[in-house]
Formats: sequence, structure tokens, C-alpha cells
Amino acid sequence: METFSWWKGHGTENDFVLLPDHDGAVHGELGADLVAALCHRRRGIGADGVLRVIRTEALRRIDPEIPETDAEWFMDYRNADGSLSEMCGNGVRVFALHLLQEGLVPGDEPVRIGTRSGTKTVTHGGPDATLSVDMGVVERLGHAEVGVGDRRWKARRLSMGNPHAVVFVDDLAEAGPLLEPPFVDVREFPEGVNVEFVQQLRPGHIAMRVHERGSGETRSCGTGACAAAVATAEELGVPLPVHQQVDVPGGVLHVRWHEDGRVDLAGPAQIVARGETSAAMLG
Amino acid sequence: METFSWWKGHGTENDFVLLPDHDGAVHGELGADLVAALCHRRRGIGADGVLRVIRTEALRRIDPEIPETDAEWFMDYRNADGSLSEMCGNGVRVFALHLLQEGLVPGDEPVRIGTRSGTKTVTHGGPDATLSVDMGVVERLGHAEVGVGDRRWKARRLSMGNPHAVVFVDDLAEAGPLLEPPFVDVREFPEGVNVEFVQQLRPGHIAMRVHERGSGETRSCGTGACAAAVATAEELGVPLPVHQQVDVPGGVLHVRWHEDGRVDLAGPAQIVARGETSAAMLG
Repeated sequence: METFSWWKGHGTENDFVLLPDHDGAVHGELGADLVAALCHRRRGIGADGVLRVIRTEALRRIDPEIPETDAEWFMDYRNADGSLSEMCGNGVRVFALHLLQEGLVPGDEPVRIGTRSGTKTVTHGGPDATLSVDMGVVERLGHAEVGVGDRRWKARRLSMGNPHAVVFVDDLAEAGPLLEPPFVDVREFPEGVNVEFVQQLRPGHIAMRVHERGSGETRSCGTGACAAAVATAEELGVPLPVHQQVDVPGGVLHVRWHEDGRVDLAGPAQIVARGETSAAMLG
Repeated sequence: METFSWWKGHGTENDFVLLPDHDGAVHGELGADLVAALCHRRRGIGADGVLRVIRTEALRRIDPEIPETDAEWFMDYRNADGSLSEMCGNGVRVFALHLLQEGLVPGDEPVRIGTRSGTKTVTHGGPDATLSVDMGVVERLGHAEVGVGDRRWKARRLSMGNPHAVVFVDDLAEAGPLLEPPFVDVREFPEGVNVEFVQQLRPGHIAMRVHERGSGETRSCGTGACAAAVATAEELGVPLPVHQQVDVPGGVLHVRWHEDGRVDLAGPAQIVARGETSAAMLG
């Protein structure tokens, strides 16, 4: 029975199994079955996704299509169902913290990480031990309509690489239990959409709930927090640069929207356990 | 930072963190805060409960009120919120499997385990690597009424040490999404009740869904499977001894109801991972 190591971590309750596989020799192509078994919350370890910790040059031998990057380490990210995903704003902080804790990168400089949506730079060591990542440029795409039950809201439409619709509400409870995906015009969002419900608490401080395409309501969404902060600043006509505190169900994030259109996402990360398992043990 | 070991296992998707603490020196009184942190599904390891693996004599020094037993090992069981619980029919199989796998008990005889509801005997090594536990005597307590939304059903009332109400339905979907506890007459169930919805598939084979007091709908409930099997046999007038296959959302259980009123519960158990953590890592 071949056992392998893993770590578990989370950022604002978006949780991940980290798989150290520095040279790609442990997991090779990393099958969807193993990822799904690891992420199963009752039959496995349980997580929103898997972050394989692998050297970029080793992953390139397995998957020649990954983007060019000069980063030594690559975040090979999989969703809980085993499918590939490009990036995760909460996951990349957990990934950077793991590299720092294990001494795999220098502790006194920003951590550069290869991802399928390009090289990400994580800065760290600031107040509250938060880590901050450059999430790229936000695109503002006008308006859309969102519905839940017989309620309808006008929403702001944005892209953070993935599509978002941001709805302003007086109270987060207004959206109800969100057991079904909010409905939108599928011609506007052919690939689905993450919907953020935002309550403005005071200048520079919002609270949000998020319904993620494919996952349902979640405890946190990094790109969703960015979209919510940008949409709020737009709605209120706040001049750049903007700083918003974003309270999500799983914790607190901070979003900075810079004059060049780039967005930084800052928040906590925590490694909570380590262990061993095997494909045989996971059944 | 003081790290400690743990294992994770499940029986029909009722999942547990096992804490080896053979002499009680690692966890002492085992605080509710640590149990809740371990069981948190996103900030911790994630489980329905914790099973401390401790020698009976060591636990007696910590908790003099545990029942007398001649079993060497005691299943010190806690619910996910940290509260004490007496017994768990799925947990005790996982506990026995751990003792067997770690060589803590002889592999060629039944495993005797102390619990707060008395000594339990787990037999093992049968077909499909299932383990079987004597769940004690069932009490039949007549009838009650159960409601969900505007539906009402007549239910059979039973006790397996904890209270149950068993409802027969033509289709398990009939009970709806079960987001709220089914309602019952609180004078009949002052301590709450587990409600089983049972569909008869063929003689000796039923499927069930269960709503557990304090937990909501779950993937499996050992005492609930026993109550469902006994109620079905009663309903149909099947002579003792009775054998029922019980399909639960998390797997398959087998219940035997003997002429002396005792009930055996058989099913699978699996240990899926091991690891280390610490109170500090869990934050």
C-alpha cells in the first residue's frame, strides 16, 4: 500500500488538501478519481479542492500546456470533482503559506507562484499575518438582472477572469436560503455566473454572500470579494485607489483596487493538519 | 507546539476523528473546544464526532462516572459540538476496526468495547469485511404522529436507548428536502426524536432517510436503521428472528432482530487517513 503525504489548510473557510509532489513522481497525472476521493467530506479528508505542490518544470513534463512562468513552484489546482481550475484567490494564499512554512521559498520576499491563469505574486508578513495576492485586472461589463424566487434585482456585471453579477441588498437575508442557483439571462452568462449579494455597512466596509456556479452558496470566494468591492466603489463613485473590507461568512477579506485597474486580495491562511493516506485507504 | 496523532474513519459515511490517547496523558479531560475544532468541516479536520481511544482504567481516573466494564478499551465518544454522547452504532464499528488494525486487541475474537451505554461486543471477519455489534434490546412504544409541511403520517414509536419515530412512505422523496425537523407532539417526545422515513423495497429489504435530532438529515444512523428494521417487521407481522437489509444514503446496513428482543447491526467500516495536528494549528 503506497501511502503519500498531505496537508490541510483553509483561507476564510475555503479549504484545501495540499499534495506535496515536488518532482511529480508521487501523483503523475493526478487522476480525477483520487482528487474526488480526497475531497469527499465523509469518505475522504474533505475539501473544496486540491492544490498539488509541484515544481513548474516537473509539471511541464506532465502537462506541456501550462503557461510560461519563471516561478519555481506551480499551484496545480483541481476542483473537488477532480476537474481542472485555473486559479483560486483563497487557495493561493494557503499555497504560499505552505511554501513559507516548509522553507521551500525565501521567507523575506514575495512568493511567486505559477498558476494556469499566469504567475501570481503573494506578499506576506503584514499586519494580522494576512497574505495578499495580485488578482489581476477587473473588467466592468455593465448591468444584468438577477432573480431568486419572485424577487428581481438589477446587478453589476464584472469579470475577474471568471464572470460575476453583484447585487446590492439592504440585508443579506433578503436573498433567502439560496438553495437553487439565482437565475440570470443565459445569453448574458453562457458559462454561468457567480452571484454576490452585497450589504453596505459603512464607507469602505461591506458584507457579502456568494453563490458560486457549480458549488452553491459557499463560505467565501476570493474573486467574488474582489468583484463585490469593485462594484460597490463604482456604485458609490468612490475615486481610485479603493480599499474595501469584505466580510464573508467564513471570515474577513480586504480588497484594494488600484488606479491601473489591478485588484489585490488580502486575507488570512492557516495550515491545520498534516497526514498520510493512500488510494487503497480511501477505498 | 504540542502535536498529537489522529485517524479519520467512517461507517456508511458517518465519519469520526479517532484520537489515540491510550493512557489519558495526551488529552486529559478532552475539552469541548478541541473536539469542536477537530470536527469543524472547514477550519478543522471535519467529522460527525470524536472517538477517543483510551484504556478503561485510564478514563476512569479522568471520569469516575463511566459504567463498570471488563473491556480493556473504552470508546470515549463526543458529538461534533463537544458534548458527551453515550453510543454510536456506526462509530463503534470504526472504533473496533482501528483496534484490530493497530493490533490493540486479538484479531481472532470478538472485540469488547466499553461505552457510556455499557459494554458492546463487535464481531468481525464475516463476508464483505463487515463488522456487527449488539445494539441491545429494542422497546416498542406504540404509535405517534409525524408532520412535514402540511403532510401528516402515522408513525411507529420505538426506543433503542434513544427515541425514534418510523414513518412508512411509498417513495423516500415524499418527505421533501427535510430542511427543518419534522414536527411531533413534544409531550410524547420531550427529549426530541430521530425520525426515519422508510420505503419497503421487497421482503427483507428497505431504504430509509433519517432526520436526527440536533443534526438534521444525515447520511446514516445506526440506531435509526435498527428502529426502521424492527418497525417494518412489526408492520408486516414478520416472525422473529428478522433480518432486514437497510439502504441508507451513505451505504448499506444489515439489522437482525432476535427472539430475545436484542438487535444486531452489521455494516462496513473504513479508516481513511492518519495525521498530526495541534491545538495551535487548529487556531
